[in-house]
Amino acid sequence: MQFTAHQIGILLNGTVEGNPDVTVNKLARIEEAKAGSLSFLANPKYEPFLYQTEASVVIVNEDFTPSQTIQSTLVKVADPYSAFSVLLEKYNTIRLDKKGIETPSFIHPEAQIGANVFIGAFAYISAGAVIGDNSKIYPQAFVGDNVQIGSDCTLFPGVKIYSDCVLGNRIVIHSNAVIGSDGFGFAPQPDGSYSKVSQIGNVVIEDDVEVGSNTSIDRATMGSTFIRKGVKLDNLIQIAHNAEIGANTVIASQTGISGSSKIGENAVIGGQVGVVGHISIAKGSQIQAKSGINRSIEEEGKKWAGAPATSYHNNLRSQVVLQRLPDLERKIEELNRAIAELKNNKS
Amino acid sequence: MQFTAHQIGILLNGTVEGNPDVTVNKLARIEEAKAGSLSFLANPKYEPFLYQTEASVVIVNEDFTPSQTIQSTLVKVADPYSAFSVLLEKYNTIRLDKKGIETPSFIHPEAQIGANVFIGAFAYISAGAVIGDNSKIYPQAFVGDNVQIGSDCTLFPGVKIYSDCVLGNRIVIHSNAVIGSDGFGFAPQPDGSYSKVSQIGNVVIEDDVEVGSNTSIDRATMGSTFIRKGVKLDNLIQIAHNAEIGANTVIASQTGISGSSKIGENAVIGGQVGVVGHISIAKGSQIQAKSGINRSIEEEGKKWAGAPATSYHNNLRSQVVLQRLPDLERKIEELNRAIAELKNNKS
Amino acid sequence: MQFTAHQIGILLNGTVEGNPDVTVNKLARIEEAKAGSLSFLANPKYEPFLYQTEASVVIVNEDFTPSQTIQSTLVKVADPYSAFSVLLEKYNTIRLDKKGIETPSFIHPEAQIGANVFIGAFAYISAGAVIGDNSKIYPQAFVGDNVQIGSDCTLFPGVKIYSDCVLGNRIVIHSNAVIGSDGFGFAPQPDGSYSKVSQIGNVVIEDDVEVGSNTSIDRATMGSTFIRKGVKLDNLIQIAHNAEIGANTVIASQTGISGSSKIGENAVIGGQVGVVGHISIAKGSQIQAKSGINRSIEEEGKKWAGAPATSYHNNLRSQVVLQRLPDLERKIEELNRAIAELKNNKS
Repeated sequence: MQFTAHQIGILLNGTVEGNPDVTVNKLARIEEAKAGSLSFLANPKYEPFLYQTEASVVIVNEDFTPSQTIQSTLVKVADPYSAFSVLLEKYNTIRLDKKGIETPSFIHPEAQIGANVFIGAFAYISAGAVIGDNSKIYPQAFVGDNVQIGSDCTLFPGVKIYSDCVLGNRIVIHSNAVIGSDGFGFAPQPDGSYSKVSQIGNVVIEDDVEVGSNTSIDRATMGSTFIRKGVKLDNLIQIAHNAEIGANTVIASQTGISGSSKIGENAVIGGQVGVVGHISIAKGSQIQAKSGINRSIEEEGKKWAGAPATSYHNNLRSQVVLQRLPDLERKIEELNRAIAELKNNKS
Repeated sequence: MQFTAHQIGILLNGTVEGNPDVTVNKLARIEEAKAGSLSFLANPKYEPFLYQTEASVVIVNEDFTPSQTIQSTLVKVADPYSAFSVLLEKYNTIRLDKKGIETPSFIHPEAQIGANVFIGAFAYISAGAVIGDNSKIYPQAFVGDNVQIGSDCTLFPGVKIYSDCVLGNRIVIHSNAVIGSDGFGFAPQPDGSYSKVSQIGNVVIEDDVEVGSNTSIDRATMGSTFIRKGVKLDNLIQIAHNAEIGANTVIASQTGISGSSKIGENAVIGGQVGVVGHISIAKGSQIQAKSGINRSIEEEGKKWAGAPATSYHNNLRSQVVLQRLPDLERKIEELNRAIAELKNNKS
Repeated sequence: MQFTAHQIGILLNGTVEGNPDVTVNKLARIEEAKAGSLSFLANPKYEPFLYQTEASVVIVNEDFTPSQTIQSTLVKVADPYSAFSVLLEKYNTIRLDKKGIETPSFIHPEAQIGANVFIGAFAYISAGAVIGDNSKIYPQAFVGDNVQIGSDCTLFPGVKIYSDCVLGNRIVIHSNAVIGSDGFGFAPQPDGSYSKVSQIGNVVIEDDVEVGSNTSIDRATMGSTFIRKGVKLDNLIQIAHNAEIGANTVIASQTGISGSSKIGENAVIGGQVGVVGHISIAKGSQIQAKSGINRSIEEEGKKWAGAPATSYHNNLRSQVVLQRLPDLERKIEELNRAIAELKNNKS
């Protein structure tokens, strides 16, 4: 993929200043760009880099005028950051474009495969599975019995989807994530051993969800574990059986949501957070990294921190005092002495 | 799979009340059941759902009499919950029944494959490996050189078992779990770099163990990392080299057990717990989620919490006072002022 | 592999005492060794085991003289521990030696494969990928478009490397680790949903790095996520987009490094640590397990602990006082009473 500054100007509906024939074949940040790169300048504090960069083409704001001589060709647009994002996405779409069915792959005769799909070598599509149009099943991915996958989805290499799970449209699941493994349910027996509680539910993932690499989402014991529309899950996350993650909620890496807990919509949960089972977290909650949530949160849109978590501000105050604990202890000793002295003086 | 109420009555040794010919083809919770579902009522507090449910068949206690009219056919049995569990298990057994050797799969000529096994496409069985009768090796699983797997085991898609590991019978390992990866052993060198300590031991997993998805169990440096009989491990757990997990111990998601530590039998360990290396935890210990265990626990059957962990009750008390820390600090200031006043008054 | 004591003596440049014809075929710790095993005695406190062991051959220090009768043949060398390590490594090299290209595997015609490589069945090598000499790509591993892998590398079964990542030489990546999955970048939209920020950078891993099983390293948004020379990462670690891990830094299991953070050289980071985004940690820092690092660390070579982290010694003192918090509270009450009494006495 190679473009001239002239072509980029047309694509972005911008004005070219400098050599319109210079070509670029990669995208780079302005502080790192080499010859042949396309970059952008949106934040004025990065302007000094413009006078040093080797980038062949730089996208700038339409009202920008350089104060020193520059080597790069400029493409002036109304909103450089958005324009660059458009290019990024276009670049990625071309880069990740895959089509066709590679061999050897395993497609059960009772599976239904939509139009225009990619199925990589060593991918496995089980009986009764449905793969929607334009979806990409990368090599070594596994799609279990009766799994339904909508259109425009991507399962990256090594993703495993257990039987009966249901995925909507435009879902992206990164490598080695596991969807629909058994919930962790075992009934204690009188002899101290455990007997397994069969896990016959499934996982339902709605449209526009993204799931990070090595994340595990367990199937429900009965019914469904729900990942609602627009949820974004980072890597190495645990979502236990019968949990429900509300629409447009974002969860960072290594967080765990225990069984049957419900997270409201538009929540933002940091990394390494733990949420106990059978509670609800109100919509719009913001939970700081490493927090431990051990009871339901009913007030919407508040910030929480700590383990066990309290309001963000209480936690902050406690943290500050915690640092001063050794001093506090010393002060108490001083008070003790002062009082003893007062008593002595009196007597 | 479709059954009539009459057939279920015979299967469960129960009495049918209502239409014996109604059919069911799925299992559901009473509060969610639709027509065609089989459900159960064990806990009396769910009785109101019985009068609203669309379930075609509901299993109830033999001495139960409905107080309102109902649509569902009832099957009356001595213990509805157990009866339903029996059905769940039967359903799951049928659902997960797989047999035969799919192609292409890789089975080394020096591997031994038992009777009645399932080996999915793209599974890999190395030289010297032994797979016992009735075991299922799902697609894309890997069984290394000389690995021994007993009978009635299930390796779900993408499980990787490194060479020389030994698994007993009736073991279930969920997708993308890794058994026998190298222990994390590196010797610091004078120049600041590290040289690898070869990890030549293995992992031994005894009968009736279940391992969750994306869990890692490292091989011993020498000797074995042991997962004893009946242990249940959730997803995304780390078991380091030379650790030993005692029989019937249960560990929740995202917990890490460091090298050479030994967990006693019948312990219950919550999620996101960390256990340092080279310690022992007494049998029957109960460790709250997110705890950090940094020393051996010798007393059996106690509850622990916090990081670093103390007894559960101490931790609870400290947590309560911690919330009041800013108040405590204020009180100390007040005491200071009171004493200063007393002194002033005196002089 | 079977060796006589005589052969081992020659191999290690040592002196044999006892039967030179006795044979060994495995390595074991002296306290566990059975007949046919080779063991070693380096630490004098293990000497009592020498008089009980069934090991056929034991490597000892050249100036060691047994004080009791022994059954084992001794091989005396200058440094028993190093000598044993040499044997371990040799044993492992033989054990893990794999060569050739198994079928079915997928090697794109535009991939370049070096001399003397191993490519296991069901491995996938994409267009433009380069695999250096002597590297081993185990079964079910995935190497994306244009990935460069140097010489003498090992990708264990199920490793996934996304497109455009660059790996140096002598790198070991354990099963189901994922290199180059998308960074977690989403731009909030006015309607509460998120739009994906395309992640077009890559991951660069320098020479002599080891990455544990089920670890995730995300590609940079633009530019590279860097894992510098000699870094050792344990299992289940998260390295976010645009992070940089300095040379010879060691990170234990389940730790997470957030986006754009930079860890200096020769740092030692414990398990379950969290590091927030966009900070720097000075070289030689030692961070205790479960710590939360929420700001940059500028001083080199210090120890840190706690969440949020403070200096190791402060944290220790605070922990001690924290245990005494309920007592402190009681003392404050006593002081209160004492002052009230003093005031009463006065009035």
